[in-house]
Amino acid sequence: MKNTRVLLARRPAGLPRESDFRVATAEVREIRNGEMLIENLYLSLDAGFRNWMNEGSGDDVLPAMPLDQPVMGLTLGRVKQSRRSDYREGELLMARLAWEEYSISDGGDFIVRLDASWPYPLSYHLGVLGDTGMSAYFGLTDIGTPQPGETVVISAAGGAVGSVAGQIAKIHGARTVGFAGSNEKCERLRTELGYDAAVHHRSARLAEELRAACPDGIDVYFDNVGGPLLEHVLAHINEGARIPFCGAVTAYNAEEPLPGPSNLFELVLKGARLQGFMTHMQIDRYPEARAALAGWLDAGELRSVEYVHEGVDRAGIGFCHLFEGRNFGKSVVRVRPDDVSDSARS
Amino acid sequence: MKNTRVLLARRPAGLPRESDFRVATAEVREIRNGEMLIENLYLSLDAGFRNWMNEGSGDDVLPAMPLDQPVMGLTLGRVKQSRRSDYREGELLMARLAWEEYSISDGGDFIVRLDASWPYPLSYHLGVLGDTGMSAYFGLTDIGTPQPGETVVISAAGGAVGSVAGQIAKIHGARTVGFAGSNEKCERLRTELGYDAAVHHRSARLAEELRAACPDGIDVYFDNVGGPLLEHVLAHINEGARIPFCGAVTAYNAEEPLPGPSNLFELVLKGARLQGFMTHMQIDRYPEARAALAGWLDAGELRSVEYVHEGVDRAGIGFCHLFEGRNFGKSVVRVRPDDVSDSARS
Repeated sequence: MKNTRVLLARRPAGLPRESDFRVATAEVREIRNGEMLIENLYLSLDAGFRNWMNEGSGDDVLPAMPLDQPVMGLTLGRVKQSRRSDYREGELLMARLAWEEYSISDGGDFIVRLDASWPYPLSYHLGVLGDTGMSAYFGLTDIGTPQPGETVVISAAGGAVGSVAGQIAKIHGARTVGFAGSNEKCERLRTELGYDAAVHHRSARLAEELRAACPDGIDVYFDNVGGPLLEHVLAHINEGARIPFCGAVTAYNAEEPLPGPSNLFELVLKGARLQGFMTHMQIDRYPEARAALAGWLDAGELRSVEYVHEGVDRAGIGFCHLFEGRNFGKSVVRVRPDDVSDSARS
Repeated sequence: MKNTRVLLARRPAGLPRESDFRVATAEVREIRNGEMLIENLYLSLDAGFRNWMNEGSGDDVLPAMPLDQPVMGLTLGRVKQSRRSDYREGELLMARLAWEEYSISDGGDFIVRLDASWPYPLSYHLGVLGDTGMSAYFGLTDIGTPQPGETVVISAAGGAVGSVAGQIAKIHGARTVGFAGSNEKCERLRTELGYDAAVHHRSARLAEELRAACPDGIDVYFDNVGGPLLEHVLAHINEGARIPFCGAVTAYNAEEPLPGPSNLFELVLKGARLQGFMTHMQIDRYPEARAALAGWLDAGELRSVEYVHEGVDRAGIGFCHLFEGRNFGKSVVRVRPDDVSDSARS
């Protein structure tokens, strides 16, 4: 059985490029006792994994990715063969495996069983009902706590986290303003995601456009990118502002550390709060978050926006798109069609 | 009656210098209906007032200080004559008046009546029981929430706020580590204020010394200065760290805005929080804070540390000492002796 895989050909310098990855084919070997063979259905493309592509980047979360091996990532698959008593053929799993059609696992790999009875396309488990949706949920509801009529600004507003966060802010009755990296995406923020205003984050008139988009100041800034936008936002925060802070695409790519905002003192003047968080720190509350998100999906108040690449061989290209800001919504690679998603969609 | 006053002779460029101030003498004029004459007893020297010495710095808190007029500041005085029905001769007041022996007020000037029955030297109302003590109280107890055994690091640890904050952290059972700007002050932090360790903030080996002083990482960083120390601290914070942030002596003096820390992303990785605050935002809770501080004073768990300049003509020099880091404890100018303080001390 052939296994198409995407290898880390070279460690990216700054922004990842297509040539940092290489598509290769290998035979799938027989599994041994204690192993199982997983047929991958979806790969999740997450900017955070960029970090572990660097030399010497290994930490207690993940070792540095070795060169010429399949790129590590979050995957969603189905058990095809099992020689383990705890997993049986046909089960749906999320795991930290690799960009390949078939993976062999010994039961480690951060496996999470999926509830096959949930009536959603499988890719939702990687996006709106997965880590990115929950990042939006925890960041906004725990830290941002938007109130009706407040102004909530969101960076990378069309990204995997931002596209959910903006909708949650709207559900809470806030005015929402999104940053995005193209005029087309700004337009989609307004028309598809209900943002009240959108600002091109590379605009030459960024300061004025942000002021115009936030006439009553900024109460919440959901920063899921990091980098220089924070300085612009701090200039407009209201007293008691909350800044949930996760992800930092900007920093992943910097070859030199970037200086922070020169106006952090605004936090003092406004009695405001910059609070970092990582979704996995709230793992006990995943069921609460998933239930809330599913409730909004069912009520038609929240929609999943996905940027789907077809075929495992597209994983490297799709990953690069994240950093070029070409994605809109959650980026996934569909490795092969599945009947669960087909029936959920129909 | 002669009135010795200290005028703003020149707008400071960067660090204030003695020559930015000029001592002058004027006659005290007769008060009119609706006015009162206040005999100043103490002046509070506060780095924050540096801001309003800049051209065009006026805001809704205070107008920019005019040149050749007495420098504005927080003062403590006694009503000497009153042509107002709401204030009577002999009352003790704190107010936002000026560096001079006698001030005339029309009842504005942010006057606060002092409870003359409190058995403390009057200068305590400007320090440990005043805004600086309350900054330490609110920053540590509301935001820092130090737990027994945790490590609390404090910038400007021998300053007006820091000298109180370090003692409060100790009362909560934390290990305390202070930054100060001289070896002599580091020694005093340990011997007089009970700090477990002290680090010279301009040490060439700052990173190593901080690591050695905080072998279990940093749980709370009370930053009452701002500036480059934050970057060093962020490199050592523990999961769930809290960073109460007030004052920013560093920024007041910068002619160009200083960049912020390049490693703000540590807040994300550690789920940590940087929270600005200003004491006056908690004005409703001043009685609570004063009662707690007084309780610790009475129990002998907290001591007031003061850096006293004798005579109003020393106000400019004393103000400059703040920025040169020459003060230890709360900086005040004693304009003249008073019997309340004398009896409290005896």
